[in-house]
Amino acid sequence: MKFFSFWRSLASFRVRIALNLKGLSPEVIDVDLMKGKQREDAYRKVNPQMLLPALVVDDGTVLFQSMAIMEYLDDVHPHPNLIPSEPLARARVRALSGIVASDSHPLIVPRVREYLEHDLKVDEAGRTKWIHNFLGAGTKALETNLASSKETGRYCQNDAITMADICLVSHAVGCNFFKYDLAPYPTVRRIVEACMQNEAFAKAHPLKQPGAPASV
Amino acid sequence: MKFFSFWRSLASFRVRIALNLKGLSPEVIDVDLMKGKQREDAYRKVNPQMLLPALVVDDGTVLFQSMAIMEYLDDVHPHPNLIPSEPLARARVRALSGIVASDSHPLIVPRVREYLEHDLKVDEAGRTKWIHNFLGAGTKALETNLASSKETGRYCQNDAITMADICLVSHAVGCNFFKYDLAPYPTVRRIVEACMQNEAFAKAHPLKQPGAPASV
Repeated sequence: MKFFSFWRSLASFRVRIALNLKGLSPEVIDVDLMKGKQREDAYRKVNPQMLLPALVVDDGTVLFQSMAIMEYLDDVHPHPNLIPSEPLARARVRALSGIVASDSHPLIVPRVREYLEHDLKVDEAGRTKWIHNFLGAGTKALETNLASSKETGRYCQNDAITMADICLVSHAVGCNFFKYDLAPYPTVRRIVEACMQNEAFAKAHPLKQPGAPASV
Repeated sequence: MKFFSFWRSLASFRVRIALNLKGLSPEVIDVDLMKGKQREDAYRKVNPQMLLPALVVDDGTVLFQSMAIMEYLDDVHPHPNLIPSEPLARARVRALSGIVASDSHPLIVPRVREYLEHDLKVDEAGRTKWIHNFLGAGTKALETNLASSKETGRYCQNDAITMADICLVSHAVGCNFFKYDLAPYPTVRRIVEACMQNEAFAKAHPLKQPGAPASV
Protein backbone atom coordinates (compact mmCIF):
# COMPACT_ATOMS: atom_id res chain seq x y z
CA MET A 1 0.00 0.00 0.00
CA LYS A 2 0.99 3.62 -0.60
CA PHE A 3 -0.33 6.35 1.65
CA PHE A 4 -0.34 9.85 0.17
CA SER A 5 -0.55 12.29 3.04
CA PHE A 6 0.86 15.39 4.68
CA TRP A 7 1.73 16.11 8.27
CA ARG A 8 -0.72 19.00 8.62
CA SER A 9 -3.72 17.31 6.96
CA LEU A 10 -6.25 16.34 9.62
CA ALA A 11 -7.96 13.85 7.29
CA SER A 12 -4.56 12.19 6.72
CA PHE A 13 -4.09 12.14 10.50
CA ARG A 14 -7.32 10.16 10.89
CA VAL A 15 -6.22 7.49 8.43
CA ARG A 16 -2.72 7.40 9.95
CA ILE A 17 -4.23 6.59 13.36
CA ALA A 18 -6.36 3.82 11.83
CA LEU A 19 -3.32 2.34 10.05
CA ASN A 20 -1.35 2.42 13.30
CA LEU A 21 -4.17 0.82 15.31
CA LYS A 22 -4.30 -2.02 12.80
CA GLY A 23 -0.52 -2.41 12.66
CA LEU A 24 -0.28 -1.51 8.97
CA SER A 25 2.76 0.33 7.62
CA PRO A 26 2.23 1.43 4.02
CA GLU A 27 4.86 3.40 2.13
CA VAL A 28 4.21 7.06 3.00
CA ILE A 29 4.39 9.66 0.23
CA ASP A 30 4.39 13.31 1.23
CA VAL A 31 2.23 15.77 -0.69
CA ASP A 32 3.15 19.20 0.62
CA LEU A 33 -0.12 21.16 0.87
CA MET A 34 1.79 24.29 1.87
CA LYS A 35 3.65 24.24 -1.47
CA GLY A 36 0.47 23.39 -3.43
CA LYS A 37 1.87 19.97 -4.42
CA GLN A 38 -1.66 18.53 -4.34
CA ARG A 39 -2.43 20.58 -7.44
CA GLU A 40 0.57 19.33 -9.44
CA ASP A 41 0.30 16.56 -12.04
CA ALA A 42 2.04 13.89 -9.98
CA TYR A 43 -0.72 13.91 -7.36
CA ARG A 44 -3.61 14.87 -9.67
CA LYS A 45 -3.01 11.57 -11.44
CA VAL A 46 -3.53 9.79 -8.14
CA ASN A 47 -6.50 11.82 -6.90
CA PRO A 48 -8.02 14.25 -9.43
CA GLN A 49 -9.91 15.89 -6.57
CA MET A 50 -6.51 17.11 -5.31
CA LEU A 51 -7.46 16.42 -1.69
CA LEU A 52 -5.57 14.35 0.86
CA PRO A 53 -5.34 11.59 1.84
CA ALA A 54 -5.30 8.82 -0.76
CA LEU A 55 -4.47 5.20 -0.13
CA VAL A 56 -3.33 3.08 -3.06
CA VAL A 57 -3.96 -0.59 -2.35
CA ASP A 58 -1.95 -3.46 -3.75
CA ASP A 59 -4.02 -3.97 -6.92
CA GLY A 60 -3.48 -0.28 -7.73
CA THR A 61 -6.95 0.92 -6.77
CA VAL A 62 -6.86 4.44 -5.36
CA LEU A 63 -9.01 4.98 -2.28
CA PHE A 64 -9.93 8.49 -1.25
CA GLN A 65 -12.02 10.24 1.43
CA SER A 66 -10.75 9.54 4.94
CA MET A 67 -14.04 8.06 6.22
CA ALA A 68 -14.31 5.66 3.28
CA ILE A 69 -10.67 4.64 3.72
CA MET A 70 -11.16 3.91 7.44
CA GLU A 71 -14.29 1.87 6.72
CA TYR A 72 -12.30 -0.04 4.06
CA LEU A 73 -9.46 -0.74 6.47
CA ASP A 74 -12.03 -1.99 8.96
CA ASP A 75 -13.62 -4.22 6.32
CA VAL A 76 -10.37 -5.91 5.30
CA HIS A 77 -8.37 -5.73 8.54
CA PRO A 78 -11.09 -6.12 11.17
CA HIS A 79 -8.80 -6.52 14.19
CA PRO A 80 -9.12 -4.33 16.13
CA ASN A 81 -12.52 -3.22 14.91
CA LEU A 82 -13.06 0.53 14.57
CA ILE A 83 -16.81 0.15 13.99
CA PRO A 84 -18.68 -1.87 16.62
CA SER A 85 -20.95 -4.72 15.59
CA GLU A 86 -24.31 -3.68 17.05
CA PRO A 87 -26.37 -1.53 14.62
CA LEU A 88 -27.29 1.29 17.04
CA ALA A 89 -23.69 1.48 18.25
CA ARG A 90 -22.47 1.58 14.65
CA ALA A 91 -24.91 4.40 13.92
CA ARG A 92 -23.71 6.42 16.91
CA VAL A 93 -20.03 5.95 16.05
CA ARG A 94 -20.67 7.02 12.47
CA ALA A 95 -22.82 9.97 13.54
CA LEU A 96 -20.21 11.28 16.00
CA SER A 97 -17.63 10.84 13.24
CA GLY A 98 -19.92 12.78 10.90
CA ILE A 99 -20.06 15.76 13.26
CA VAL A 100 -16.32 16.05 12.64
CA ALA A 101 -15.98 14.91 9.05
CA SER A 102 -19.15 16.44 7.59
CA ASP A 103 -20.08 19.37 9.85
CA SER A 104 -16.82 20.79 11.16
CA HIS A 105 -13.66 19.92 9.27
CA PRO A 106 -14.98 20.73 5.74
CA LEU A 107 -15.46 24.36 6.84
CA ILE A 108 -11.86 24.95 7.89
CA VAL A 109 -9.85 23.18 5.19
CA PRO A 110 -7.26 25.12 3.13
CA ARG A 111 -9.48 25.66 0.06
CA VAL A 112 -12.16 27.30 2.25
CA ARG A 113 -9.68 29.45 4.16
CA GLU A 114 -8.13 30.47 0.83
CA TYR A 115 -11.54 31.40 -0.62
CA LEU A 116 -12.29 33.52 2.44
CA GLU A 117 -8.92 35.27 2.16
CA HIS A 118 -8.52 35.74 -1.58
CA ASP A 119 -12.05 35.88 -2.97
CA LEU A 120 -13.95 37.41 -0.07
CA LYS A 121 -11.01 39.47 1.27
CA VAL A 122 -11.71 38.37 4.84
CA ASP A 123 -8.82 39.45 7.07
CA GLU A 124 -7.02 37.14 9.46
CA ALA A 125 -9.19 38.10 12.46
CA GLY A 126 -12.32 37.42 10.42
CA ARG A 127 -10.98 34.07 9.25
CA THR A 128 -10.13 33.08 12.79
CA LYS A 129 -13.66 34.03 13.87
CA TRP A 130 -15.07 31.84 11.08
CA ILE A 131 -12.88 28.92 12.08
CA HIS A 132 -13.74 29.28 15.77
CA ASN A 133 -17.45 29.54 14.97
CA PHE A 134 -17.59 26.26 13.07
CA LEU A 135 -15.06 24.38 15.22
CA GLY A 136 -17.04 25.62 18.21
CA ALA A 137 -20.38 24.38 16.87
CA GLY A 138 -18.85 20.96 16.26
CA THR A 139 -17.17 20.83 19.66
CA LYS A 140 -20.41 21.79 21.43
CA ALA A 141 -22.29 19.08 19.53
CA LEU A 142 -19.68 16.49 20.46
CA GLU A 143 -19.56 17.54 24.13
CA THR A 144 -23.37 17.58 24.42
CA ASN A 145 -23.67 14.09 23.02
CA LEU A 146 -20.70 12.61 24.87
CA ALA A 147 -21.58 14.18 28.23
CA SER A 148 -25.23 13.07 28.12
CA SER A 149 -25.13 9.60 26.58
CA LYS A 150 -24.99 6.46 28.67
CA GLU A 151 -23.06 4.89 25.78
CA THR A 152 -20.05 7.08 26.49
CA GLY A 153 -17.32 5.32 28.41
CA ARG A 154 -13.54 5.65 28.58
CA TYR A 155 -13.89 6.36 24.86
CA CYS A 156 -16.74 7.77 22.76
CA GLN A 157 -18.55 4.44 22.49
CA ASN A 158 -18.04 2.50 25.70
CA ASP A 159 -14.52 1.31 26.47
CA ALA A 160 -13.13 0.34 23.08
CA ILE A 161 -11.52 2.69 20.58
CA THR A 162 -13.67 3.39 17.51
CA MET A 163 -13.64 5.60 14.43
CA ALA A 164 -15.44 8.23 16.53
CA ASP A 165 -12.38 8.54 18.79
CA ILE A 166 -10.14 8.94 15.77
CA CYS A 167 -12.37 11.73 14.46
CA LEU A 168 -12.64 13.34 17.89
CA VAL A 169 -8.85 13.44 18.26
CA SER A 170 -8.37 14.92 14.77
CA HIS A 171 -10.95 17.56 15.70
CA ALA A 172 -9.19 18.38 18.97
CA VAL A 173 -5.81 18.70 17.23
CA GLY A 174 -7.48 21.01 14.68
CA CYS A 175 -8.79 23.10 17.58
CA ASN A 176 -5.24 23.31 18.94
CA PHE A 177 -3.83 24.34 15.56
CA PHE A 178 -6.34 27.18 15.36
CA LYS A 179 -6.16 28.07 19.08
CA TYR A 180 -9.78 27.21 19.80
CA ASP A 181 -9.93 26.69 23.56
CA LEU A 182 -11.21 23.27 24.62
CA ALA A 183 -11.34 24.14 28.34
CA PRO A 184 -15.18 24.35 28.41
CA TYR A 185 -15.50 20.80 27.03
CA PRO A 186 -14.43 18.38 29.79
CA THR A 187 -15.76 15.17 28.21
CA VAL A 188 -14.11 15.89 24.88
CA ARG A 189 -10.84 16.64 26.67
CA ARG A 190 -11.03 13.55 28.84
CA ILE A 191 -11.55 11.19 25.90
CA VAL A 192 -8.89 12.90 23.78
CA GLU A 193 -6.41 12.52 26.64
CA ALA A 194 -7.30 8.83 27.00
CA CYS A 195 -6.71 8.30 23.28
CA MET A 196 -3.40 10.14 23.26
CA GLN A 197 -2.07 7.69 25.83
CA ASN A 198 -2.34 5.07 23.11
CA GLU A 199 0.84 4.81 21.05
CA ALA A 200 -1.12 4.44 17.79
CA PHE A 201 -2.60 7.90 18.36
CA ALA A 202 0.49 9.50 19.86
CA LYS A 203 2.88 8.57 17.08
CA ALA A 204 0.32 9.61 14.42
CA HIS A 205 0.22 13.21 15.71
CA PRO A 206 0.77 15.74 12.92
CA LEU A 207 3.69 17.39 14.70
CA LYS A 208 5.50 14.06 14.98
CA GLN A 209 5.61 13.48 11.22
CA PRO A 210 8.71 14.07 9.07
CA GLY A 211 8.87 17.66 7.88
CA ALA A 212 6.57 19.00 10.59
CA PRO A 213 7.58 22.04 12.67
CA ALA A 214 7.90 21.85 16.45
CA SER A 215 4.65 23.78 16.81
CA VAL A 216 2.09 25.62 14.66
CA MET B 1 -39.99 5.12 13.65
CA LYS B 2 -40.30 8.91 13.51
CA PHE B 3 -38.53 10.84 10.79
CA PHE B 4 -37.82 14.52 11.55
CA SER B 5 -37.24 16.24 8.26
CA PHE B 6 -38.09 19.17 6.01
CA TRP B 7 -38.87 19.33 2.33
CA ARG B 8 -35.93 21.59 1.49
CA SER B 9 -33.28 19.73 3.49
CA LEU B 10 -31.02 17.81 1.12
CA ALA B 11 -29.75 15.55 3.92
CA SER B 12 -33.39 14.68 4.75
CA PHE B 13 -33.93 13.99 1.05
CA ARG B 14 -31.13 11.41 1.11
CA VAL B 15 -32.65 9.52 4.03
CA ARG B 16 -36.14 9.79 2.48
CA ILE B 17 -34.88 8.05 -0.68
CA ALA B 18 -33.25 5.29 1.42
CA LEU B 19 -36.48 4.78 3.39
CA ASN B 20 -38.48 4.58 0.16
CA LEU B 21 -36.04 2.13 -1.45
CA LYS B 22 -36.39 -0.13 1.58
CA GLY B 23 -40.17 0.20 1.71
CA LEU B 24 -40.16 1.85 5.15
CA SER B 25 -42.80 4.44 6.06
CA PRO B 26 -42.00 6.11 9.39
CA GLU B 27 -44.18 8.86 10.80
CA VAL B 28 -42.89 12.11 9.24
CA ILE B 29 -42.54 15.18 11.44
CA ASP B 30 -41.87 18.49 9.73
CA VAL B 31 -39.25 20.85 11.17
CA ASP B 32 -39.57 24.09 9.19
CA LEU B 33 -36.00 25.31 8.60
CA MET B 34 -37.30 28.48 6.99
CA LYS B 35 -39.07 29.42 10.23
CA GLY B 36 -36.07 28.41 12.39
CA LYS B 37 -38.06 25.58 14.01
CA GLN B 38 -34.86 23.52 14.28
CA ARG B 39 -33.65 25.97 16.93
CA GLU B 40 -36.79 25.70 19.08
CA ASP B 41 -36.99 23.51 22.18
CA ALA B 42 -39.25 20.85 20.66
CA TYR B 43 -36.58 19.84 18.14
CA ARG B 44 -33.53 20.67 20.28
CA LYS B 45 -34.69 17.97 22.65
CA VAL B 46 -34.57 15.50 19.76
CA ASN B 47 -31.30 16.66 18.21
CA PRO B 48 -29.32 19.21 20.23
CA GLN B 49 -27.20 19.87 17.12
CA MET B 50 -30.34 21.44 15.58
CA LEU B 51 -29.60 19.89 12.22
CA LEU B 52 -31.89 17.74 10.08
CA PRO B 53 -32.66 14.93 9.65
CA ALA B 54 -33.14 12.78 12.75
CA LEU B 55 -34.64 9.32 12.83
CA VAL B 56 -36.09 8.06 16.10
CA VAL B 57 -36.18 4.27 16.13
CA ASP B 58 -38.66 2.16 18.03
CA ASP B 59 -36.65 1.92 21.28
CA GLY B 60 -36.48 5.72 21.34
CA THR B 61 -32.86 6.05 20.23
CA VAL B 62 -32.32 9.18 18.15
CA LEU B 63 -30.19 8.71 15.07
CA PHE B 64 -28.65 11.71 13.38
CA GLN B 65 -26.30 12.48 10.46
CA SER B 66 -27.75 11.34 7.12
CA MET B 67 -24.83 9.07 6.23
CA ALA B 68 -24.95 7.28 9.60
CA ILE B 69 -28.72 6.89 9.27
CA MET B 70 -28.43 5.38 5.79
CA GLU B 71 -25.73 2.96 6.96
CA TYR B 72 -27.98 2.01 9.90
CA LEU B 73 -30.95 1.37 7.63
CA ASP B 74 -28.69 -0.78 5.47
CA ASP B 75 -27.49 -2.70 8.54
CA VAL B 76 -30.98 -3.54 9.81
CA HIS B 77 -32.97 -3.62 6.55
CA PRO B 78 -30.42 -5.03 4.10
CA HIS B 79 -32.80 -5.56 1.17
CA PRO B 80 -32.12 -3.89 -1.15
CA ASN B 81 -28.56 -3.22 -0.11
CA LEU B 82 -27.32 0.36 -0.49
CA ILE B 83 -23.70 -0.59 0.23
CA PRO B 84 -22.27 -3.39 -1.93
CA SER B 85 -20.56 -6.36 -0.32
CA GLU B 86 -17.08 -6.25 -1.90
CA PRO B 87 -14.63 -4.08 0.11
CA LEU B 88 -13.25 -2.02 -2.81
CA ALA B 89 -16.78 -1.42 -4.10
CA ARG B 90 -17.88 -0.39 -0.61
CA ALA B 91 -14.96 2.03 -0.40
CA ARG B 92 -15.82 3.59 -3.77
CA VAL B 93 -19.51 3.99 -2.89
CA ARG B 94 -18.61 5.61 0.42
CA ALA B 95 -15.98 7.86 -1.17
CA LEU B 96 -18.35 9.10 -3.87
CA SER B 97 -20.92 9.70 -1.14
CA GLY B 98 -18.27 11.60 0.82
CA ILE B 99 -17.62 13.99 -2.08
CA VAL B 100 -21.22 15.08 -1.61
CA ALA B 101 -21.70 14.75 2.13
CA SER B 102 -18.27 15.93 3.33
CA ASP B 103 -16.87 18.12 0.55
CA SER B 104 -19.83 19.85 -1.07
CA HIS B 105 -23.06 19.96 0.91
CA PRO B 106 -21.56 21.20 4.22
CA LEU B 107 -20.44 24.38 2.43
CA ILE B 108 -23.88 25.41 1.21
CA VAL B 109 -26.14 24.62 4.18
CA PRO B 110 -28.29 27.36 5.77
CA ARG B 111 -25.95 28.07 8.70
CA VAL B 112 -23.05 28.72 6.29
CA ARG B 113 -25.13 30.90 3.95
CA GLU B 114 -26.41 32.81 6.99
CA TYR B 115 -22.85 33.35 8.28
CA LEU B 116 -21.77 34.66 4.89
CA GLU B 117 -24.76 37.03 4.77
CA HIS B 118 -25.01 38.30 8.32
CA ASP B 119 -21.47 38.04 9.73
CA LEU B 120 -19.38 38.58 6.61
CA LYS B 121 -21.92 40.84 4.83
CA VAL B 122 -21.48 38.97 1.57
CA ASP B 123 -24.17 40.11 -0.88
CA GLU B 124 -26.42 37.72 -2.80
CA ALA B 125 -24.18 37.66 -5.89
CA GLY B 126 -21.19 36.83 -3.69
CA ARG B 127 -23.09 34.09 -1.91
CA THR B 128 -24.18 32.59 -5.21
CA LYS B 129 -20.56 32.65 -6.39
CA TRP B 130 -19.51 30.83 -3.20
CA ILE B 131 -22.22 28.22 -3.64
CA HIS B 132 -21.38 27.68 -7.31
CA ASN B 133 -17.67 27.42 -6.53
CA PHE B 134 -18.11 24.59 -4.03
CA LEU B 135 -20.98 22.83 -5.80
CA GLY B 136 -18.84 23.08 -8.93
CA ALA B 137 -15.79 21.52 -7.31
CA GLY B 138 -17.89 18.64 -6.06
CA THR B 139 -19.64 18.14 -9.40
CA LYS B 140 -16.31 18.13 -11.26
CA ALA B 141 -14.92 15.54 -8.84
CA LEU B 142 -17.99 13.35 -9.29
CA GLU B 143 -17.98 13.66 -13.09
CA THR B 144 -14.24 12.94 -13.33
CA ASN B 145 -14.56 9.79 -11.26
CA LEU B 146 -17.79 8.55 -12.82
CA ALA B 147 -16.70 9.24 -16.41
CA SER B 148 -13.32 7.54 -16.02
CA SER B 149 -14.02 4.50 -13.83
CA LYS B 150 -14.77 1.10 -15.27
CA GLU B 151 -16.90 0.50 -12.16
CA THR B 152 -19.47 3.02 -13.35
CA GLY B 153 -22.53 1.44 -14.94
CA ARG B 154 -26.16 2.43 -15.23
CA TYR B 155 -25.63 3.78 -11.73
CA CYS B 156 -22.53 5.04 -9.88
CA GLN B 157 -21.35 1.55 -8.93
CA ASN B 158 -22.27 -0.86 -11.71
CA ASP B 159 -25.97 -1.51 -12.30
CA ALA B 160 -27.45 -1.52 -8.81
CA ILE B 161 -28.54 1.53 -6.84
CA THR B 162 -26.25 2.42 -3.93
CA MET B 163 -25.83 5.16 -1.36
CA ALA B 164 -23.60 6.94 -3.89
CA ASP B 165 -26.59 7.37 -6.22
CA ILE B 166 -28.67 8.76 -3.38
CA CYS B 167 -25.93 11.29 -2.60
CA LEU B 168 -25.44 12.12 -6.28
CA VAL B 169 -29.14 12.84 -6.74
CA SER B 170 -29.28 15.03 -3.61
CA HIS B 171 -26.28 16.92 -4.99
CA ALA B 172 -27.92 17.40 -8.38
CA VAL B 173 -31.14 18.68 -6.82
CA GLY B 174 -29.04 21.08 -4.73
CA CYS B 175 -27.42 22.29 -7.97
CA ASN B 176 -30.89 22.88 -9.41
CA PHE B 177 -32.01 24.79 -6.32
CA PHE B 178 -29.02 27.09 -6.65
CA LYS B 179 -29.10 27.25 -10.46
CA TYR B 180 -25.72 25.63 -10.93
CA ASP B 181 -25.73 24.36 -14.52
CA LEU B 182 -25.13 20.61 -14.86
CA ALA B 183 -24.91 20.71 -18.67
CA PRO B 184 -21.10 20.18 -18.70
CA TYR B 185 -21.42 16.97 -16.65
CA PRO B 186 -22.98 14.31 -18.89
CA THR B 187 -22.22 11.29 -16.70
CA VAL B 188 -23.64 12.93 -13.60
CA ARG B 189 -26.76 13.90 -15.56
CA ARG B 190 -27.19 10.46 -17.09
CA ILE B 191 -27.06 8.67 -13.73
CA VAL B 192 -29.32 11.21 -12.03
CA GLU B 193 -31.88 10.75 -14.81
CA ALA B 194 -31.69 6.96 -14.44
CA CYS B 195 -32.28 7.29 -10.68
CA MET B 196 -35.20 9.67 -11.08
CA GLN B 197 -37.01 7.07 -13.16
CA ASN B 198 -37.18 5.02 -9.96
CA GLU B 199 -40.32 5.78 -7.95
CA ALA B 200 -38.40 5.68 -4.65
CA PHE B 201 -36.31 8.63 -5.86
CA ALA B 202 -39.08 10.45 -7.71
CA LYS B 203 -41.55 10.55 -4.83
CA ALA B 204 -38.80 11.60 -2.39
CA HIS B 205 -38.06 14.78 -4.36
CA PRO B 206 -38.08 17.87 -2.13
CA LEU B 207 -40.67 19.65 -4.26
CA LYS B 208 -43.08 16.74 -3.92
CA GLN B 209 -43.23 16.92 -0.12
CA PRO B 210 -46.13 18.48 1.84
CA GLY B 211 -45.60 22.22 2.26
CA ALA B 212 -43.13 22.54 -0.60
CA PRO B 213 -43.61 25.24 -3.24
CA ALA B 214 -44.03 24.39 -6.93
CA SER B 215 -40.46 25.58 -7.60
CA VAL B 216 -37.58 27.29 -5.81
